Amino acid sequence: MHTSTALLTDHYELTMVDAALQAGTAQRGSVFELFARRLSGARRYGVVAGTGRLLDAIERFRFTDAELEFLREHRIVSGAALDWLADFRFSGDIWGYPEGEVFFPGSPLIIVESSFAEGVLLETLALSILNADSAVATAASRMSHAAAGKPLAEMGSRRTGEYSAVAAARSAYLAGFSATSNLEAGRRYGIPTMGTAAHSFTLLHDSERQAFEAQVAALGTDTTLLVDTYDIEQGVRTAVEVAGTGLGAVRIDSGDLPVVVAQVRRLLDELGATRTRITVTNDLDEHTVAALAASPVDSFGVGTSVVIGSGTPTMGMVYKLVAHENESGEWISVAKKSAEKASVGGRKSVRRSYNARGTATAELILLGDGPSGEPEGEDLPGVSREVLAPLVQAGEILPEHTGAAGLAAARERHRTRVAELPPVALSLTRGDPAIPTEYR
Amino acid sequence: MHTSTALLTDHYELTMVDAALQAGTAQRGSVFELFARRLSGARRYGVVAGTGRLLDAIERFRFTDAELEFLREHRIVSGAALDWLADFRFSGDIWGYPEGEVFFPGSPLIIVESSFAEGVLLETLALSILNADSAVATAASRMSHAAAGKPLAEMGSRRTGEYSAVAAARSAYLAGFSATSNLEAGRRYGIPTMGTAAHSFTLLHDSERQAFEAQVAALGTDTTLLVDTYDIEQGVRTAVEVAGTGLGAVRIDSGDLPVVVAQVRRLLDELGATRTRITVTNDLDEHTVAALAASPVDSFGVGTSVVIGSGTPTMGMVYKLVAHENESGEWISVAKKSAEKASVGGRKSVRRSYNARGTATAELILLGDGPSGEPEGEDLPGVSREVLAPLVQAGEILPEHTGAAGLAAARERHRTRVAELPPVALSLTRGDPAIPTEYR
Repeated sequence: MHTSTALLTDHYELTMVDAALQAGTAQRGSVFELFARRLSGARRYGVVAGTGRLLDAIERFRFTDAELEFLREHRIVSGAALDWLADFRFSGDIWGYPEGEVFFPGSPLIIVESSFAEGVLLETLALSILNADSAVATAASRMSHAAAGKPLAEMGSRRTGEYSAVAAARSAYLAGFSATSNLEAGRRYGIPTMGTAAHSFTLLHDSERQAFEAQVAALGTDTTLLVDTYDIEQGVRTAVEVAGTGLGAVRIDSGDLPVVVAQVRRLLDELGATRTRITVTNDLDEHTVAALAASPVDSFGVGTSVVIGSGTPTMGMVYKLVAHENESGEWISVAKKSAEKASVGGRKSVRRSYNARGTATAELILLGDGPSGEPEGEDLPGVSREVLAPLVQAGEILPEHTGAAGLAAARERHRTRVAELPPVALSLTRGDPAIPTEYR
Repeated sequence: MHTSTALLTDHYELTMVDAALQAGTAQRGSVFELFARRLSGARRYGVVAGTGRLLDAIERFRFTDAELEFLREHRIVSGAALDWLADFRFSGDIWGYPEGEVFFPGSPLIIVESSFAEGVLLETLALSILNADSAVATAASRMSHAAAGKPLAEMGSRRTGEYSAVAAARSAYLAGFSATSNLEAGRRYGIPTMGTAAHSFTLLHDSERQAFEAQVAALGTDTTLLVDTYDIEQGVRTAVEVAGTGLGAVRIDSGDLPVVVAQVRRLLDELGATRTRITVTNDLDEHTVAALAASPVDSFGVGTSVVIGSGTPTMGMVYKLVAHENESGEWISVAKKSAEKASVGGRKSVRRSYNARGTATAELILLGDGPSGEPEGEDLPGVSREVLAPLVQAGEILPEHTGAAGLAAARERHRTRVAELPPVALSLTRGDPAIPTEYR
């Protein structure tokens, strides 16, 4: 996927560049901020995901001849704008919440400091990636703690667009899942992949036994056999007869799971397959995972609900101009005034405050004027920690945020940051954010 | 996007191929069917979308050295399976509901007739594309009739994954939208693109007037000016002062729209801008569009709700083996027995029946045995029409289903097929399918 990402954007980003170039305002220094006004789905916290993918996409945000030809042919922008786009390469600074970090209403997740033209061009792409990936990661994070330490695999590729599926596998892994069914996610991001067989494989063969024999011959006795195509009890018996008591696992994809799982565990133990694991995969979400966490289930496969954000497929993040230079080169904080869409102007910095036990207590958003990479807040009471980190400096992407290493760091960061939240954060009910956002 | 699609699939599709190759069952003739057990979101009808994209993706479903190397390195399948995959090219037949057609519970939207191995390989990719694209098209279709003939533009790229955004623009266009903000959708599918400016453009400038002047200078007086950054009434007055009474349109993105739209229309008329259009874009869905259809709005921009399927981001379609050859080469109809996931075995054909006024009355699903391209149903009462069409024959994709011509035909087909449904189909409330599905 080394193709240009430059047309994965809205028409108006380019017409604004065009008009600002003609008006002589395109080069005004500007600060854009990406944030969510509220936590969609009344979540207790959000999980930042997509940052590494965004940085990769910015690297490939170039207008090659193919993109310019489309814009010229359809007269989307003027010739002067085409010349400017042909030379475009993002040259500004980007700060942000590192991937895997938790966030709250108003948290400035991405701060772009550049000319107006450079900053506005990234709007649609940044929102597409962060909105979608963070929605999946936020849902996956809830499922991870609902599972109470038992492993979760993401298996929802078939329920979302074919490329969103790859991104969803990445977001779920970042938020605590341990594997995915999606092979492209395995190739692209190094995520462990897994899977053995579907019902169709059993149906193809002349009997369930023949199907199990074929699978064990090819994949070994440590495989997972799907036992519910016909009768589950008979399926379990046949599975152990075919694979022996060293059978790796059985998968159950239907039925009243708490009851069925207990029956299957008893049967496996009776048959001597005491180490054979049980995995379940029947339309699970965080609530059904939580309800099964105390049952003898060994692992979960989650499909639809994780890839569609468990009822919240997008986070409602927006990307707003919060400060810019005026005609005289002075920095002005700006904000849209419409009542229901108010935003807070100015370049922010952020500190998260903690109590003496190390539990997070508030998201402190400190208002500044022009662009500033320097954290403030030395005069804040108690313990607090700077949240924003540099992602891009003078157009150069900081490599620690991308690639397999960036993803591994994000996964660890997610674990750490969620563990610092107060206990209410782990509630699966709708409610207020786990910590308040305070402006200083 | 000429890259391979072969890893946009689940791990288990490949392990099933591997095991079936080793067991000698991989080449058994098989029929797979893609269908929805119910209409997600209690819609009155579904709209088939993604078929053209799926056919393109099948064309690119090849295991090149890069894909094979990943599979080898991670030991996902055996060496024999790698050899088979290296030569893989789909060589079977595919029948399906042509894109834009409406569908109901049980409608066999895609029927794949091939060896087991060839058919099972397409499962995940086919479901990813059809589930996502049809969810968007189904929501967009509701919005199209809610708008009662006024034009709709799709503007939701920022609220879904960056490649799903391109697909969503295509699905919305297919289901009656007239334009998109997404430039890649314009390039790839020839969909008209549109857009002028965001609030950030107004905020960048030293006054709203300066911003409007800059936009009109670049884009002409026929442009659309966004008038709600500060005070809407003043915004409208300034817009007409700057652009004159020939101003193309004003856009309103906030406020209590039915009230505001009426006020803006009166004001524009007072100012002599009687031909200036009003477009609205504030978190619209089919219900708010319907509520505004009788107001003096001239066009709608719909964002979030259309790209996430208006509460139903995926259609819940499944892909099941329904018939196959046994050891002796006889065709067997098969079905999974689990109570809540029952499926109907056998190769189907479909006729839609009509009453004397040309209104659809039922989806008739005719059960057959082995593979059959021949429609049945000559002995059915009344008027009925064959629904399934060939999409792929002996591995050759029929070109009328792909490309810009395929999309244009799908758009026209959608219009025709929705118009044939009984009036209840246009109800926006949750309820039963507009026509019953009957098995014969």
